[in-house]
Amino acid sequence: YSVCTRHREGFNLGVCNNGQCFLSYVMKENGASDLIITPATTFKEKPDPSGLVFGTVFTDNMLTIEWSLASGWEKPYIKPLENLSLHPASSSLHYAVELFEGMKAYRGVDGKIRLFRPTLNMDRMVRSARRAALPCFDQNELLECIRKLVEVEKEWVPYSAAASLYIRPTLIGTEPSLGVKKPTKALLYVILSPVGPYFASGSFNPISLWADPKYVRAWKGGTGDCKLGGNYGSSIYAQQEALELGCQQVLWLYGEDHQITEVGTMNLFLYWINEDGENELATPPLDGIILPGVTRQSILDLACDWGEFKVSERYITMSDLTAALEKNRVKEMFGAGTACIVCPISKILYKGKHLHIPTMENGPQLATRFLNKLSDIQVRCFLFFNQIK
Amino acid sequence: YSVCTRHREGFNLGVCNNGQCFLSYVMKENGASDLIITPATTFKEKPDPSGLVFGTVFTDNMLTIEWSLASGWEKPYIKPLENLSLHPASSSLHYAVELFEGMKAYRGVDGKIRLFRPTLNMDRMVRSARRAALPCFDQNELLECIRKLVEVEKEWVPYSAAASLYIRPTLIGTEPSLGVKKPTKALLYVILSPVGPYFASGSFNPISLWADPKYVRAWKGGTGDCKLGGNYGSSIYAQQEALELGCQQVLWLYGEDHQITEVGTMNLFLYWINEDGENELATPPLDGIILPGVTRQSILDLACDWGEFKVSERYITMSDLTAALEKNRVKEMFGAGTACIVCPISKILYKGKHLHIPTMENGPQLATRFLNKLSDIQVRCFLFFNQIK
Repeated sequence: YSVCTRHREGFNLGVCNNGQCFLSYVMKENGASDLIITPATTFKEKPDPSGLVFGTVFTDNMLTIEWSLASGWEKPYIKPLENLSLHPASSSLHYAVELFEGMKAYRGVDGKIRLFRPTLNMDRMVRSARRAALPCFDQNELLECIRKLVEVEKEWVPYSAAASLYIRPTLIGTEPSLGVKKPTKALLYVILSPVGPYFASGSFNPISLWADPKYVRAWKGGTGDCKLGGNYGSSIYAQQEALELGCQQVLWLYGEDHQITEVGTMNLFLYWINEDGENELATPPLDGIILPGVTRQSILDLACDWGEFKVSERYITMSDLTAALEKNRVKEMFGAGTACIVCPISKILYKGKHLHIPTMENGPQLATRFLNKLSDIQVRCFLFFNQIK
Repeated sequence: YSVCTRHREGFNLGVCNNGQCFLSYVMKENGASDLIITPATTFKEKPDPSGLVFGTVFTDNMLTIEWSLASGWEKPYIKPLENLSLHPASSSLHYAVELFEGMKAYRGVDGKIRLFRPTLNMDRMVRSARRAALPCFDQNELLECIRKLVEVEKEWVPYSAAASLYIRPTLIGTEPSLGVKKPTKALLYVILSPVGPYFASGSFNPISLWADPKYVRAWKGGTGDCKLGGNYGSSIYAQQEALELGCQQVLWLYGEDHQITEVGTMNLFLYWINEDGENELATPPLDGIILPGVTRQSILDLACDWGEFKVSERYITMSDLTAALEKNRVKEMFGAGTACIVCPISKILYKGKHLHIPTMENGPQLATRFLNKLSDIQVRCFLFFNQIK
């Protein structure tokens, strides 16, 4: 993934390494040093970290940065969290000209607050912006603004190992007209939410999945490899049907051969003895329909670093999986994402049959090891913006 | 397309003819008779109808109706057009939980104002709502509210045969939390915009298209047959590339055989001598990736009514088209939609070659006939809410 060559001033046309960033104005009129901070003077009560429901409680302040084609990026503001005032024709509300990111700030064992590999989120956000025809921006400057926001809200980072402060950068088109076109106005904002485990059942209870090819999350030539709003809203209908059928999440299939792609809003990992008798950790490759998750990448990085088993980005079909289940070759299957970190899978409903996945019977040793290692990095590494390597 | 069985009161679970409307609460606590009308007391200057740019000018008032899982639909309001006040976590802004419709009101030769087949839009809007996990509603009640809004704004319906009042119903999720789930709050609103021709080049100048399989608009198992925001924002990037290549719109292809599906935001029609030597008007079938357009349906209805040539909903591939072009079997190709009504196509850039489509050389007789007939119905039929048949 190449990112845009950034220009420091003016209306320079963004030029991409791969030549695809036509018409994207990449500007930096204002940056983190121009931040105007007018924080809230009244404060909400901070919730008990043990009772948090994902993304329902927000902190006192937010970051906002307006953009227009005419003036570029305006000065960033940190100010009290408030409703957005949007023209009813805004292109985010009609044509889903919008994208988001998800990151977390952790309170470390040393009392310091850390973000986990935030530059990966910033890079992905710029790629999403390009795909959504929204303006590009300087990743370092935005990250510094986010760091300042977290600093202002540092008391909201839970004093708890089981909870963290979820960071939600969002970029929306605010073009106030109805033609389907590149917006001339946009708003970047960041809100913060103290969160516990993503799933109500707790973070390490196994989940059951519904696998049916009738709904397809993403496809070649679409937007499944970017974090655009449209990828998510369209999934809720299938998610409802999964719930109706007694499953908690959707296992998204693709193609005639029912490739396993993602699970709910997470990347997917299979730890098994593969067709060649090797211990293998497998996850679908980034072929355009898979979101390049930060947790996904971190799990791959860790596993490669350990060097104890084969690590593959490869296709896995439902028939690969069922054949392996029959031969007792499957050890663990789990989802991976920022919200849940690692989420074990115990059951898949496919073609009317419940496939039992022996993840929990096998520990889950590997999933637990990833969770512990990632959590450890998140609360112990020295750098504020730590890197896994 | 079946629509929900509607329940008149309470929290009855909506039951669909096809059993797919699980978890959709279909309620009617309030209706058009509960409308609270507090119209604007200051008025914007109405623009010259000859200089209108699509969707940039809005009338003085809007319709808003709030919904919540707890209370159902609130009373509808007609009130001055104003910015929406939305929680920054609103599910429309993060996950594109949103849909829209497009309709037009015409000032007739008799001075009366008419909508064109609005019940088709209302039915499609309910189907979109179901797919987007947004609340269903009573189509007749919403239509009556829209009729009242147009009545309040009747002086905004242009006194011009070349212009009309575009009606934009919108339904957005306003759930103020970050879990990807069915929203517990929503807002339905309608804004009005006097419009001239959709394309800046004028309504009946032919357009050039870029056909490349690398971007795919919609796919089986996705949302391409509903009017969800996500279908549109994701198209802008390809549209930019089309412009870079000197074309005005994208011709969306699908599948290994490069099926022709839609053009820009329009349905597509081909009038040709088909493989069997018959005069045929062809448009792709509603197989899940095609938006069931009202103009599309009206053209099919008219053509069937005339009975002068074969009318087919059928697959057309790029190789079907190029073979027909070589044999001089193509007469006209045009897009069809509410915004433009009928839009002739003169050129397609495909695999590096410019294919000339002889639409204009052939009149375009049929496209012109459809435009004239539809325009005639739109300004002459007796019913306020007229029906084509």
